[in-house]
Amino acid sequence: MTKVAVFGAGSWGTAFATVLANAGNQVSIWGRRESLCEVINSQHENPDYLPGLRLPDAITATHDPAAAADGAEAVVLAVPSQSLRANLSEWAGVLPSAVPLVSLMKGVEVGTTKRMSEVIAELTGAGPERIAVVSGPNLAREIAEGQPAASVVACADEGTATRLQKLCHSPTFRPYTNNDVIGCELGGATKNVIALAVGMAIGLGFGDNARASVITRGLVETARLGTALGADEHTFSGLAGLGDLVATCSSPLSRNRTFGEKLGQGLTVAEIAGATRQVAEGVKSCSSITDLAHHHDVEMPIAEHVTRVVAGEMTPKDMLFSLISRSAKSERWG
Amino acid sequence: MTKVAVFGAGSWGTAFATVLANAGNQVSIWGRRESLCEVINSQHENPDYLPGLRLPDAITATHDPAAAADGAEAVVLAVPSQSLRANLSEWAGVLPSAVPLVSLMKGVEVGTTKRMSEVIAELTGAGPERIAVVSGPNLAREIAEGQPAASVVACADEGTATRLQKLCHSPTFRPYTNNDVIGCELGGATKNVIALAVGMAIGLGFGDNARASVITRGLVETARLGTALGADEHTFSGLAGLGDLVATCSSPLSRNRTFGEKLGQGLTVAEIAGATRQVAEGVKSCSSITDLAHHHDVEMPIAEHVTRVVAGEMTPKDMLFSLISRSAKSERWG
Repeated sequence: MTKVAVFGAGSWGTAFATVLANAGNQVSIWGRRESLCEVINSQHENPDYLPGLRLPDAITATHDPAAAADGAEAVVLAVPSQSLRANLSEWAGVLPSAVPLVSLMKGVEVGTTKRMSEVIAELTGAGPERIAVVSGPNLAREIAEGQPAASVVACADEGTATRLQKLCHSPTFRPYTNNDVIGCELGGATKNVIALAVGMAIGLGFGDNARASVITRGLVETARLGTALGADEHTFSGLAGLGDLVATCSSPLSRNRTFGEKLGQGLTVAEIAGATRQVAEGVKSCSSITDLAHHHDVEMPIAEHVTRVVAGEMTPKDMLFSLISRSAKSERWG
Repeated sequence: MTKVAVFGAGSWGTAFATVLANAGNQVSIWGRRESLCEVINSQHENPDYLPGLRLPDAITATHDPAAAADGAEAVVLAVPSQSLRANLSEWAGVLPSAVPLVSLMKGVEVGTTKRMSEVIAELTGAGPERIAVVSGPNLAREIAEGQPAASVVACADEGTATRLQKLCHSPTFRPYTNNDVIGCELGGATKNVIALAVGMAIGLGFGDNARASVITRGLVETARLGTALGADEHTFSGLAGLGDLVATCSSPLSRNRTFGEKLGQGLTVAEIAGATRQVAEGVKSCSSITDLAHHHDVEMPIAEHVTRVVAGEMTPKDMLFSLISRSAKSERWG
């Protein structure tokens, strides 16, 4: 039986572990907190992130990175984006040197503006043929419940992508291959920021027309950044672009959308973070994405406005009216 | 004051009439039923389609097509798609011969597979410089309530598009110009069919991941048909493509989505039509769109499957499992 290591015991790491287990693999989850690992092993449940769902028996958890990685034929990375660098430094010498490294993370590193695959390459020395990304309309809770879903496995190397596709193809999870790592990563990272804007629209009482407009214009600016960075614009019309964006913006389960809703209702970032004990990824990545856009001379009005709201420089209401009143004559907004 | 005629007193015709009135025009609605016209004139409300909303005083209604059209500087057509041909025949000699004709309709004619602009051209003899389409994420009820929305005014002639843009630019309604009439029309017609599929997924209890996948794959096949017919693929990533599709598929107000939900719950087309006294546009247009796809050798699996469900040849459940299990290796599904 193939063993796969999943580094990260959050909701998406755990849900993807269930996909891998249902696809026939032995899965070893590394978790930061020893107590959570013990509960996963003894109760076959991750009560912190997926309460009430029984995990397959083929999943075990450990606090020891070496034990998690030992013998794994693929390593899946599912830690918070802004912790990846520190985590990979800790795990130096532990990760197997020849297996694929798969990123489930959807963020852009603050400060460096690096995508997760770039951080992985920098810290592990892995070449592009070993670094892959899984991204799509994949709300973790639904995946863990076994609801049908499709996703994208992207890698510059088609052989690696196809191997990983087989590894995670379960009866309810259909992965499609794609060679556009940049596009898949940017789609995933930017959708969190767009979801914040959609959440703010909802929190302010705007209807489905306004939300759909934010989603549409958000995808246009994501594709604009992506193509400037070398992505294929078609990726943004696919499952890792449009699909992921629509799932996130439609679902009350989405942390980013929910965070945005609370902003729209008038709470501050600090108040929301204090009440929920976590900050949504888009809140951290929005400034990196705006920085990336500036470096590449790309206009991203929604990301810019979200960054200003998160920084406390603008209210959500002013943001939405500013976006709506942007002067424009033809549909390709300037 | 400019006068605009709106032919059709349904929900979208009436909502667009409020946009035109709020943009400063005198609006004359033609309605098929004299009794409804009287209520609109005496109570400033359309209780059949937008109950509870007060219409602007600049809107009047008449049962007489000549009176509605008299002096109008633009004619907006908002009748059911499958009735357009018969209606235009009735109105021969009544419609002004030199003003723009604007289609709000989102369907493809059964039998001929003609888009609405083609039916208008055939019946009125108007050239492409006079025929325009308005389409976007525009749920009628929200528009009539004055919620902010954006839309697309498409015409082959930029001057006409710009004139119409000014005519319907209200404080809450922002129209963008575009020259891709074919793309805007196909986006609008096909989204009704995709919304039926999304509704079925909801009715069957599928979650947001599956819905987002149907939306994504639906837009891909819409763009495939569109480009085969000469549309610009970017239109499908815009407000009249993605925007309209997402608004319709997100909203419980959408007739097509609701119709699909009931199909997913096990009701038949006849049962739903009997209970609601109307058939959603996608139910009528799906076979025309599938025919169009066949004529142009384009694969549209979702439209094909919806057509089979509507024809009673397949259950919604079998449809969704058939779509999910389509064999495919890379993201550009074959």
